[in-house]
Amino acid sequence: MAVDYRLTSVPDDAFIRGKVPMTKEEVRTVTLSKLRLHEHAVVLDIGAGTGSLSIECALKIPNGSVYAIERNDEGIDLIHKNKSQFGCENLEVISGMAPDDLPETVMFDSIIIGGTGGNMLDVLEYCRAHLKEEGWIVANMITLENMSLFLNYAKSHFKNVEVVQINVSKSKMLKDITMLMANNPIFVISAQK
Amino acid sequence: MAVDYRLTSVPDDAFIRGKVPMTKEEVRTVTLSKLRLHEHAVVLDIGAGTGSLSIECALKIPNGSVYAIERNDEGIDLIHKNKSQFGCENLEVISGMAPDDLPETVMFDSIIIGGTGGNMLDVLEYCRAHLKEEGWIVANMITLENMSLFLNYAKSHFKNVEVVQINVSKSKMLKDITMLMANNPIFVISAQK
Amino acid sequence: MAVDYRLTSVPDDAFIRGKVPMTKEEVRTVTLSKLRLHEHAVVLDIGAGTGSLSIECALKIPNGSVYAIERNDEGIDLIHKNKSQFGCENLEVISGMAPDDLPETVMFDSIIIGGTGGNMLDVLEYCRAHLKEEGWIVANMITLENMSLFLNYAKSHFKNVEVVQINVSKSKMLKDITMLMANNPIFVISAQK
Amino acid sequence: MAVDYRLTSVPDDAFIRGKVPMTKEEVRTVTLSKLRLHEHAVVLDIGAGTGSLSIECALKIPNGSVYAIERNDEGIDLIHKNKSQFGCENLEVISGMAPDDLPETVMFDSIIIGGTGGNMLDVLEYCRAHLKEEGWIVANMITLENMSLFLNYAKSHFKNVEVVQINVSKSKMLKDITMLMANNPIFVISAQK
Repeated sequence: MAVDYRLTSVPDDAFIRGKVPMTKEEVRTVTLSKLRLHEHAVVLDIGAGTGSLSIECALKIPNGSVYAIERNDEGIDLIHKNKSQFGCENLEVISGMAPDDLPETVMFDSIIIGGTGGNMLDVLEYCRAHLKEEGWIVANMITLENMSLFLNYAKSHFKNVEVVQINVSKSKMLKDITMLMANNPIFVISAQK
Repeated sequence: MAVDYRLTSVPDDAFIRGKVPMTKEEVRTVTLSKLRLHEHAVVLDIGAGTGSLSIECALKIPNGSVYAIERNDEGIDLIHKNKSQFGCENLEVISGMAPDDLPETVMFDSIIIGGTGGNMLDVLEYCRAHLKEEGWIVANMITLENMSLFLNYAKSHFKNVEVVQINVSKSKMLKDITMLMANNPIFVISAQK
Repeated sequence: MAVDYRLTSVPDDAFIRGKVPMTKEEVRTVTLSKLRLHEHAVVLDIGAGTGSLSIECALKIPNGSVYAIERNDEGIDLIHKNKSQFGCENLEVISGMAPDDLPETVMFDSIIIGGTGGNMLDVLEYCRAHLKEEGWIVANMITLENMSLFLNYAKSHFKNVEVVQINVSKSKMLKDITMLMANNPIFVISAQK
Repeated sequence: MAVDYRLTSVPDDAFIRGKVPMTKEEVRTVTLSKLRLHEHAVVLDIGAGTGSLSIECALKIPNGSVYAIERNDEGIDLIHKNKSQFGCENLEVISGMAPDDLPETVMFDSIIIGGTGGNMLDVLEYCRAHLKEEGWIVANMITLENMSLFLNYAKSHFKNVEVVQINVSKSKMLKDITMLMANNPIFVISAQK
C-alpha cells in the first residue's frame, strides 16, 4: 500500500542530505501543520536548505504547487536530488537570492521562511505583498536576531502571531540503553495576513 | 472552503475541555504523525481523556475508524461532546476500563496509549495481541514510571522503538510583549509490531 | 550546624512569596554563579521582585553588600519580609524606579537585571556607567523583546556575552508516581564590562 | 584577587578534557548545590569521568575531602591532570570499580553518582550503607534506564526524593549572530538518607 503523505511524516533518513543543516522530523511536522495547507495551495519555501520542508509539503499537496528558493549550490543540488527521489513534479526549484529571484506575479497561500541571506526585511516585504489575504507565513528561526526581527515585523504587519519554541530530544539506543540526544531549539513563528 | 484535516491540525481551543488534562496541539500533531495512519486504518486510543487525539485522528481518516476508551466520567462526557461538535461518525466511544472493556475481535493498525489505570502490563498484552503485524503503537507518557514501564515492554516485544521527548513553550502576548509559557514535557514513544 | 549559604542554595519554599513571580531555585543558582561574586562584592539587583536573588546573594557575601530596587509595592513588602526572615543586614532595599532612584555614587562589581519598567535602555546606560571595569552584568529575561533588547545592547557595549536558555522541569510526586512539571524557560544573559 | 570557588563556578574550558563526556557548567553548578555541602564535608563522586564535578567540589570545600572513583583509564588520567592543575590536595583519586574498590570505613556527607558500570544496585547498596544520616545523594543520569533504576531505589530507601530535568541551550556567536546550541538533557535526582 502506498504511503499517504497527508497522513504520515517523512523520516529524516529518507532524505538525501549533505552538510547543509536540515529541519528535523518533528519540527517539520509541526511547521507544516502551521501552514494550514489545502489541496490546491500554492506554497513558497524561502531558504529551502536541503528541501526537506518543500519536499514534504509537495508530497502532501499533489494537486497544489511548491516553490523552493535556495542560494547555496550544495543546497540546490540536494533539493534537485530529493525532488527526483520523491518524484515531486509539483515542486519548482529556484536557484538564487530572495526576494530578487522570486516570481513577481505568483500569489501564495502559505510561505515558509527557513533562512535568509541577511536581507530579511526585503524578504518580508515581498512576502507581505505576495501572500494572499488570510494566508499564513511560518518562520523556523534558529538565531535570536532573526527570530526577533521576524517577530517584530509579524507583530506590526500580520495578525494571529504565535511563537512556539520546540526542544526535541530523541533516543539513541546503545545496546539496551536509551540515551536522549538533544536537537537544537527552534522557534516556529506563525502569523496570518 | 472546508478545512482538510489531513493537512491541518485542530487548534486546542476548538475542543470542548473540562478539567481533564488535554494533549496540546504540537504534541498531538507529532503523535498522530507517528501513528503512520492510512485512509482505512482502524485505530484505538486508550485513556482518551478529552478525546482530542481520537477526534483529530477520526477527522484525518473519515474512511477509517477510531475507538476511544476512557474510564473517567467527565472524560467520557467530553469525548461525546467533542464527537458531536466535530461530527465524527467514525469514532466509537467506550466507557470503561482497558483492557477489560476493549473489543476482543478487532485488530488495529495503530494504537495510542495516553493513560492507563495502573494495569499497564495487561493493557500492553492486549495491545500486542490486537495490533496487526507491522502496526504501530504510540504512547504519550507524562510520568517517569509509566514511561519506563512502556519503554521496557517495547524494547522486549516490539521493534523500531523510538523515544522523543518534547518540550514546547508557547507565546502569551501581553500588550506588545511576548512571554514564553512552558507546557509540561512529554515522552512520545513509538514502536512497531 | 549552620547552613553555609556559599555552598548551598536556598530552596524556593524558604522564601515568603506572594503573587509576585519568583525566580526558581535552579535558575537562581545558575544566575548567582554567573555574577562571579567575591567576598566583598557590591551587587545591584534591578527589578528584584520577591527579592529571592537579592536575599540569596546577600547570604552568600555577608561581608559584601547588595542593593535591591523594586517598584511594585507588594514586591517591596515581600523583600522586607524576606530580608527580616533571613537576617540580611547587608541588603539595602530601594522602593522606586530604575534608574531614577538608584544611587549616583556607588560602583558595582555585579549587576542583576530581573525586570525593568519599560525603560530598559536608560537602565542599561546606568548599569554601564556604574559597573566597575571587568564587572559582570547578568540578566534573567522571560520576554523575547527584553531578551533581544538586552542582547543587542550587550553585544555593542560589553564583552564575553553569553546567552544560556534554561528549561527546568521538576518532579511532582503523586503517591508513588513522578510527574515532570515544566517551569517557564528563562534566558540568562551575562556580559562583562 | 584569587577566585573564591565557593562563590563562582569553574567554566568548562578551564578543565583539561579528552574524549570523555563532561558534565557542563550549569548542570555542574546545580548538581553541586543539591549536595548541601558544608565546610568539612566528606564527599564521594562515583563515575567521576573527567573529574569536573570532583574538582569543583574539592575547590569549594578546601577543609573537606573528596573521593573520586573512575574505571576508565583515560578518565583517571584526566582527573589526575585536572587535580594537579587546580592544586586540589583534598581530592583522592581511586582507579577502579565501584563498589569493590571504594573504602570500607569512610562515611560520606554527600555522594555524587555520575556513572556506573552496570552494577548500579550494588553501588546503591554501598551508598546507602556509607552515607551519614541526613546525608544527600545526587545522581546525574543521561540514560532513561539508569534514571528509572535510581529513582525507584531512591523512592524505596531514601526521603525527600526530587527529580529535576535540565535542558540547557547555550549561545554560539557567528560574527554578530547568536545561535542556541542544545546540550543533551540531564536528570538530576537528589535524595536524603
